[in-house]
Amino acid sequence: MTRKQLIEAIRSKSSYLCVGLDTDPERIPKQLLSSPDPIFEFNKAIIDATRDFAVAYKINTAFYEAQGIDGWKAMQKTVEYIPKDIFTIADAKRGDIGNTSSQYAKAFFEKLPFDSITVAPYMGSDSVQPFLEYPGKWAIVLGLTSNAGAADFELKTMEGSRLYEQVLKTVAEWGTDENLMFVVGATQAAEFKNIRKIIPTHFLLVPGVGAQGGSLKEISEYAMNEDIGLLVNASRAVIYADNTTDFASAARKQAQAYQQEMKTYIR
Amino acid sequence: MTRKQLIEAIRSKSSYLCVGLDTDPERIPKQLLSSPDPIFEFNKAIIDATRDFAVAYKINTAFYEAQGIDGWKAMQKTVEYIPKDIFTIADAKRGDIGNTSSQYAKAFFEKLPFDSITVAPYMGSDSVQPFLEYPGKWAIVLGLTSNAGAADFELKTMEGSRLYEQVLKTVAEWGTDENLMFVVGATQAAEFKNIRKIIPTHFLLVPGVGAQGGSLKEISEYAMNEDIGLLVNASRAVIYADNTTDFASAARKQAQAYQQEMKTYIR
Repeated sequence: MTRKQLIEAIRSKSSYLCVGLDTDPERIPKQLLSSPDPIFEFNKAIIDATRDFAVAYKINTAFYEAQGIDGWKAMQKTVEYIPKDIFTIADAKRGDIGNTSSQYAKAFFEKLPFDSITVAPYMGSDSVQPFLEYPGKWAIVLGLTSNAGAADFELKTMEGSRLYEQVLKTVAEWGTDENLMFVVGATQAAEFKNIRKIIPTHFLLVPGVGAQGGSLKEISEYAMNEDIGLLVNASRAVIYADNTTDFASAARKQAQAYQQEMKTYIR
Repeated sequence: MTRKQLIEAIRSKSSYLCVGLDTDPERIPKQLLSSPDPIFEFNKAIIDATRDFAVAYKINTAFYEAQGIDGWKAMQKTVEYIPKDIFTIADAKRGDIGNTSSQYAKAFFEKLPFDSITVAPYMGSDSVQPFLEYPGKWAIVLGLTSNAGAADFELKTMEGSRLYEQVLKTVAEWGTDENLMFVVGATQAAEFKNIRKIIPTHFLLVPGVGAQGGSLKEISEYAMNEDIGLLVNASRAVIYADNTTDFASAARKQAQAYQQEMKTYIR
C-alpha cells in the first residue's frame, strides 16, 4: 500500500487506529477452543467486527510462533483474510546481515502478503536496506519503544544526542517517507515534539495506548502532521475487551470509541 | 545444555565449530529438489556428515520463514534431528517488550527444543529477561556484528564508550555466564582483546569466518579463554562447499579442516 492510499484510507474512515492481533489461546473466549483453528476464528471475528474503524492490523508474530506450525498457518490465514484496503503490519522486529534480512523480506513481503514489517536498527544499514526494495512495502524501524527497557540504550546519549535520535536521523537517510516509518511508544509523549523536529513527515507507528497506559490525546496533539502521519495501535484493550461470547461486539465498541476520539483530533 | 556440558563437548571433540544451517533451496544440490522436503533432506545429510566435528548447529530462521509453513516444518524437523549432545542455536535475532519476548521464548524453548536463541539488545532489559528464565537455555545477545552496518550504531560512542561496549557491560549484569552469550563478528578481530576485558568469562558466538572473511587464527588467539569460551560459526563455507551429489562429503571435509585447525589452538 502506498503512502497516498494510506492517507486516503485514514481520511475516509476518520481513523488512524491500528488493531493489534496479539492473539493468545490462553486469553481468547473458551468456546472458540473447540474450533479446528481457534486463533484464526478469533482473528476473523475481531477483523469482521473492527474493520469499519481500523485502517491497519498489526500481527505480533511472537504469539503465532509460540504455537508452532499451527500458529504460522493461522498467521498466514489471518493476513490473507484482512481486506486489501487495510494496511497490514508484521510486528516481527526482524533485522540481520544483508543476505539474511533479504530472506526475512521474502518471508513477509513475498511468501506472506504483508504491507510492512517492524525492523530492529541495531545492526545498521545493510540490515534495513533489503526491506526498502519492494515498491509499496514498508520497513517500520524501532525508534523509541514503549517499554521500561527503552532507558537502557535508546535514551542514552551518543555523540551529543540520544541513541534513538541518532537512529531516527540516520535511518531516515536510508529511505523516504514513502517506504520508512518509525515505532515510537505512546508512553513517550514527552519526546514527541522533539521527534517531529527530526522526522516531520514520516508516519509513526505508536503502540502503548490502552494496556500500557499511553494517552491518545497527547500523542495526537504532539505528533500529528498535515498528512496525519500516525498509526496508533491498541491490542489488548480492543481484542480482549470482553472474553465471553460477546467478545466481537465488545471489540467493535472499543474500536469505535477510539475512532470517535480520533475523529475529534483529525485536522 | 549447561555451560559445563558445552565445555565438555568442546574438550572431547577438540572443536568449537558451529555449523550454520542457512539452507536456501536455490543453493542446495538440484537432485534434492524432487524430495518431499528438500530443506530437511539437505540438513539431515549435512548434520550426518559434520556431527563428528561440530559442537553446535545454528539455524538461521530467516531462511526457513522465507519458505512459509513448509520452512517452519523443516526447521522443526531439523532441530529435532540434531543429536541431543550438540548445542542448538535459533539464530532469530528476536526481542520485544516483555510479554512478547516471553512468547518468543515459548516458541523457541518450549514449542521447539532449541538450547539458545540470538537476541537483539536495542529494546533493553525487559526484552532480554524472558529468555534468561529457562534453566539450561541461553540468550545470545548481539554485541558487535560482522557486517558493514556495525559502523552505523554499534561502533558509535555513547557516554564515553562505544555502544556495543555499553551493551556488553549492561547486558552482562542481567544474567550470568551460564545463561548469556554474546555475538561478536569474526571480522572485528581488532576489538577482541577489548571485548575480553569487558566480558572475560562469557562464551562468544562468532560468525563471519569463511564467506565473510574473518580469520579463525586471530579470533582464537585474541578471544579464547580458559574454558575456550568460543563457538565459531561457518555457514556457507561448509554447507555449500560443493553443490553436486558429493555435497555432504565436501561439507564433512570442510568441517574437519576447521576442527583440525581449532585443535591446534585449544589450550
